Amino acid sequence: MKIILAKSAGFCFGVKRATSMAFDSADSHERICSLGPIIHSPQLVEKLEEKGVSVVGRVEDIHEGAVIVRSHGITADEMADLATKGLEVVDATCPFVKIAQDHAALLSSEGYVVVLVGEEEHPEVQGIVSYAAGVDVYVVPDQAKAEGIPRSKKIGVVAQTTQPFENLRQVVDVCLRKSKELRVFNTICDATSVRQGEARDIARQVDLMLVIGGFNSANTNRLAQLCSEIQPRTYHVETAIEIDSAWFDGVQTVGITAGASTPQWIIDEVVDRVSGLKK
Amino acid sequence: MKIILAKSAGFCFGVKRATSMAFDSADSHERICSLGPIIHSPQLVEKLEEKGVSVVGRVEDIHEGAVIVRSHGITADEMADLATKGLEVVDATCPFVKIAQDHAALLSSEGYVVVLVGEEEHPEVQGIVSYAAGVDVYVVPDQAKAEGIPRSKKIGVVAQTTQPFENLRQVVDVCLRKSKELRVFNTICDATSVRQGEARDIARQVDLMLVIGGFNSANTNRLAQLCSEIQPRTYHVETAIEIDSAWFDGVQTVGITAGASTPQWIIDEVVDRVSGLKK
Repeated sequence: MKIILAKSAGFCFGVKRATSMAFDSADSHERICSLGPIIHSPQLVEKLEEKGVSVVGRVEDIHEGAVIVRSHGITADEMADLATKGLEVVDATCPFVKIAQDHAALLSSEGYVVVLVGEEEHPEVQGIVSYAAGVDVYVVPDQAKAEGIPRSKKIGVVAQTTQPFENLRQVVDVCLRKSKELRVFNTICDATSVRQGEARDIARQVDLMLVIGGFNSANTNRLAQLCSEIQPRTYHVETAIEIDSAWFDGVQTVGITAGASTPQWIIDEVVDRVSGLKK
Repeated sequence: MKIILAKSAGFCFGVKRATSMAFDSADSHERICSLGPIIHSPQLVEKLEEKGVSVVGRVEDIHEGAVIVRSHGITADEMADLATKGLEVVDATCPFVKIAQDHAALLSSEGYVVVLVGEEEHPEVQGIVSYAAGVDVYVVPDQAKAEGIPRSKKIGVVAQTTQPFENLRQVVDVCLRKSKELRVFNTICDATSVRQGEARDIARQVDLMLVIGGFNSANTNRLAQLCSEIQPRTYHVETAIEIDSAWFDGVQTVGITAGASTPQWIIDEVVDRVSGLKK
């Protein structure tokens, strides 16, 4: 069986950086926790827990030691509370997310109504909007929702870093009609579209597609959805254990990709497992 | 013969203001000229000349007295030269054009590459771009030309006040792909689209359409073009004299509109002439 493994499979820049900071801090600190899971990979979070990094849900529950801020970032209030408590902060917020937070803060400080193109319930989005203080803020996942934004003299737009460009484009189109001044910071990170483009290319060439990543990872779910639209025999797995040899009946070529928060060792295990299957 | 006269026919706010300033200044000044024709109406320019307001093409040719700056505005250099020469300036620049000039200046001072949606040879456009100093400036009439703009970190967009919104929309769409930060000032004045919309409505209801205005007026030419697409029996005239009774054979209803620089007395003369025609 031939395997095509996506070059862009696995950790993006921000996740790689956050993970490396977390392991380094685990080695150098006695008491350390992460505020929320550091990335959306249960397997990696477990490895960090083995090294003493516990996951804590709320700032109120942290009383001493160091705190790792996850790659998706946290809210401005949470960041302030950590400082007030005098806790040591290991800020592993992805630098691209940080830029989006800074732009939201800039737009609000200059009096723009802030529109964030993204998914309301995503922690990255909740973090970014928290930096837009004292102005109206609208989180819109798509053009239809953007139509509900009231007219305003000044509208500022930022995007969740993993959004498709087409979403940003459509929301900008609506906001142009609704304002006299429109300021857009394109805070979308190319890693997502590069990964998606490569996954689509591979899905077109194979008989079966495997997408590896946390079931709680938005970008992995989206990747699996895109692949299944091209190749109905697409399977989303978190680890190699879930792979069922029965899936591979009549399969000559297998495509493999992985979300931005999927550790390399899990990708390696999947490749090993598939390679070991009898054709 | 029934006549439908457009409510929006004739002077817009900026032209009304400029004309009124010009006549007032003619009364109160011994020596006065206008730098370029004050508005695109040869008939009105003639009336002003009778009151002593000569039209001068270049600042170099003005040596004393007062200078009226036309509704379309002039370049920053011309304005500076007038000041250097110690001439009294009657600034009849349309306030909406002034806003576009100010925004071009603001964008350039903040380091944006400036994109102006408009017609390169129009005096308003030449005025606006002159305020964008020290940065790259691109005048684009449409989306196709916008594709030629190079990628840039920061792109700022302003529009000629008489542009169709759809042009701005399409250029913004292109610029979004070409920048990380995009700042758009929608400097389009609604008067043009209101006038065009009403003209289209009337053209649909009539057997013949008259569009009155200077042959050198871009907005009047555009108005005539839009009407002729709906009603092929559309005639563009500058004055009542040009009206030929032969045009009206079999005509029951006549629509009349006029460009933004068409004086009321010319519209009145046309309405009188058409009313006096035998059906």
